[in-house]
Amino acid sequence: MSKFLHTKYDSLTPYDTSGEVESMKGYIRLNTNESPFPPSPKVMSAVLEASRGLNYYCDPECSQLAAKIAEMFSLKPSQIVFGNGSDEILNFLFMAFCEKGAAFPNITYSFYKILAKFHGVDYIPVPLKNFRVDPSYYKNVKGRTIFLANPNAPTSLAMPLSEIEEILTSNPESLVVVDEAYVDFGADSAVTLLPKYGNLVITRTFSKSRSLAGARLGWCMTSEETAADMRNIKNTLTPYNINAMTQAAGLASLDDEEYTRKNIDMIRMIRGNTKSRLQEMEFEVLDSSTNFLFAKHETISGEEIFSSLKKYRIMIRHFSNPPAISDYNRITVGTPEQMQIFLEIMRGITKNAKQ
Amino acid sequence: MSKFLHTKYDSLTPYDTSGEVESMKGYIRLNTNESPFPPSPKVMSAVLEASRGLNYYCDPECSQLAAKIAEMFSLKPSQIVFGNGSDEILNFLFMAFCEKGAAFPNITYSFYKILAKFHGVDYIPVPLKNFRVDPSYYKNVKGRTIFLANPNAPTSLAMPLSEIEEILTSNPESLVVVDEAYVDFGADSAVTLLPKYGNLVITRTFSKSRSLAGARLGWCMTSEETAADMRNIKNTLTPYNINAMTQAAGLASLDDEEYTRKNIDMIRMIRGNTKSRLQEMEFEVLDSSTNFLFAKHETISGEEIFSSLKKYRIMIRHFSNPPAISDYNRITVGTPEQMQIFLEIMRGITKNAKQ
Repeated sequence: MSKFLHTKYDSLTPYDTSGEVESMKGYIRLNTNESPFPPSPKVMSAVLEASRGLNYYCDPECSQLAAKIAEMFSLKPSQIVFGNGSDEILNFLFMAFCEKGAAFPNITYSFYKILAKFHGVDYIPVPLKNFRVDPSYYKNVKGRTIFLANPNAPTSLAMPLSEIEEILTSNPESLVVVDEAYVDFGADSAVTLLPKYGNLVITRTFSKSRSLAGARLGWCMTSEETAADMRNIKNTLTPYNINAMTQAAGLASLDDEEYTRKNIDMIRMIRGNTKSRLQEMEFEVLDSSTNFLFAKHETISGEEIFSSLKKYRIMIRHFSNPPAISDYNRITVGTPEQMQIFLEIMRGITKNAKQ
Repeated sequence: MSKFLHTKYDSLTPYDTSGEVESMKGYIRLNTNESPFPPSPKVMSAVLEASRGLNYYCDPECSQLAAKIAEMFSLKPSQIVFGNGSDEILNFLFMAFCEKGAAFPNITYSFYKILAKFHGVDYIPVPLKNFRVDPSYYKNVKGRTIFLANPNAPTSLAMPLSEIEEILTSNPESLVVVDEAYVDFGADSAVTLLPKYGNLVITRTFSKSRSLAGARLGWCMTSEETAADMRNIKNTLTPYNINAMTQAAGLASLDDEEYTRKNIDMIRMIRGNTKSRLQEMEFEVLDSSTNFLFAKHETISGEEIFSSLKKYRIMIRHFSNPPAISDYNRITVGTPEQMQIFLEIMRGITKNAKQ
């Protein structure tokens, strides 16, 4: 730490990307919840076209993207704000909308805790109940901003909209943020609740179902009033946050819904098949509404499964903390070919353990 | 303002992008200091190639870019941190390195003041002397972080390195940030001072000389210690801040130095010629080390020149505040064709004013 750093940041805990994108040539990477499919061919030609005009600043309002998404979800463009990934949207939310603190599940996307700590936001980790969000646990949050990933990561479980509505209704003084990074893989979007609840914020990303993790594009949908605040924050800190190529990639992706739909269907099919095979090997597998599986073996520890697979150059995601999930692993759904190799090796590991 | 916004942000003043990138088809835009030349053809093919792999997360460390820039400037890669434009680097600096406040010229890049206000940083606007930074005015800043644009905007004037060194020496307890956005057009870079001064930070951008304003790529060079702090901040807030296409565009640009050099030479030539023509029309033109001119007419007000040109669909940048510069305008150096049209119309405006 240099002597120039603000003392309030003297014990930063950055988000751990080490296991995620370290150089792993030749590895099968089932550890980062990326799509195994490249983006739509339309994305590539749109990006090439955009690159010709890179000497000019990009549109700070992402007007074309906003118009398109507004149309898709029957909203006004003024209800939509874009971020450099939905991570940037989350950063704005923790920075500017948590004066009374935050509340989120004790097992969820680890970035919430990191952002809360960074911005000095007092937060409550709310327990899950059998790995599920229980709305009754959110009755006394006293104006804290509530963050819910739906479906949740790493558990892969979705909440029904009725439960989200229960939380919205019982907390009119709280902003309720529903992080729908994985919603396209099988949960109901809370976007239909937007006209009814002024305290709802929905965050989305192009990283998962749209195969654009490397392009960094996320957005939020909320009331015009809250969106105006978000836009003010954005325009103060980083007016040109979405570069011209990413804007073009996002638009082209939205213009090829059939491609996205086909990939989602494929991932759901592979997910179902992988789950069945894992169950045959005595894994307990949670009911996934995402592009990954959260699974625990009856006898082999989570750590051992992770390490054994790594020896075969297959990466999955292991969480040593909290202890409640340390025997689970998070396994991204890859291509049929990748999953076949994964399952074959997994079969070997489970057989060996029995001997 | 929604009821959910943190009260400390109830009077935000966002950066004004309205005059900069509003839809101005058919206009000659000499108001945003963009390069009039497209990026290198190498950039386009690199971007297309990168778009194929967008389903994967981008490298959070920008390792290839860091290695390349380290080589160019005889630094270690660990001394370099990248931002989503140099604006993001500036944001990190105001957020995390200004516990004792900030000091910067009262006439400089307007973003410094906006960021200082946003982060609650107490700042001193230090007067210029005949539009120039006077090192003797920075002798008593008491540990405040000093921000100097060199060359300065909108004045276009460069500081000699000896004066920067004077400020570094007289403020060992202050971080001194030299914003070199325009340095390639004619100033000496402070990069040669890095081995000697642990309190120096240099920020750079690909937006100007490298024709990549729409790609959003900036970086800073500093001591390994301060860079480690910056990297921690970055990895906490936005680990994947530079998308894969922008990383590819930046690398390709660095691989085509001849193209950049040729464009810089061309801009300097056009700048010199435009300055001479303006002087013939009774303009006072400051000695530009940038890709723009800062000019004031002997008799016609700055506001009138701006408005007259706008009628002819030519945009330049006018600042109504502070009063000391309200009779000046900032004129970006465009292509020879653009400048010919600009000068012809300018001749008409000055002749009419005499009649």
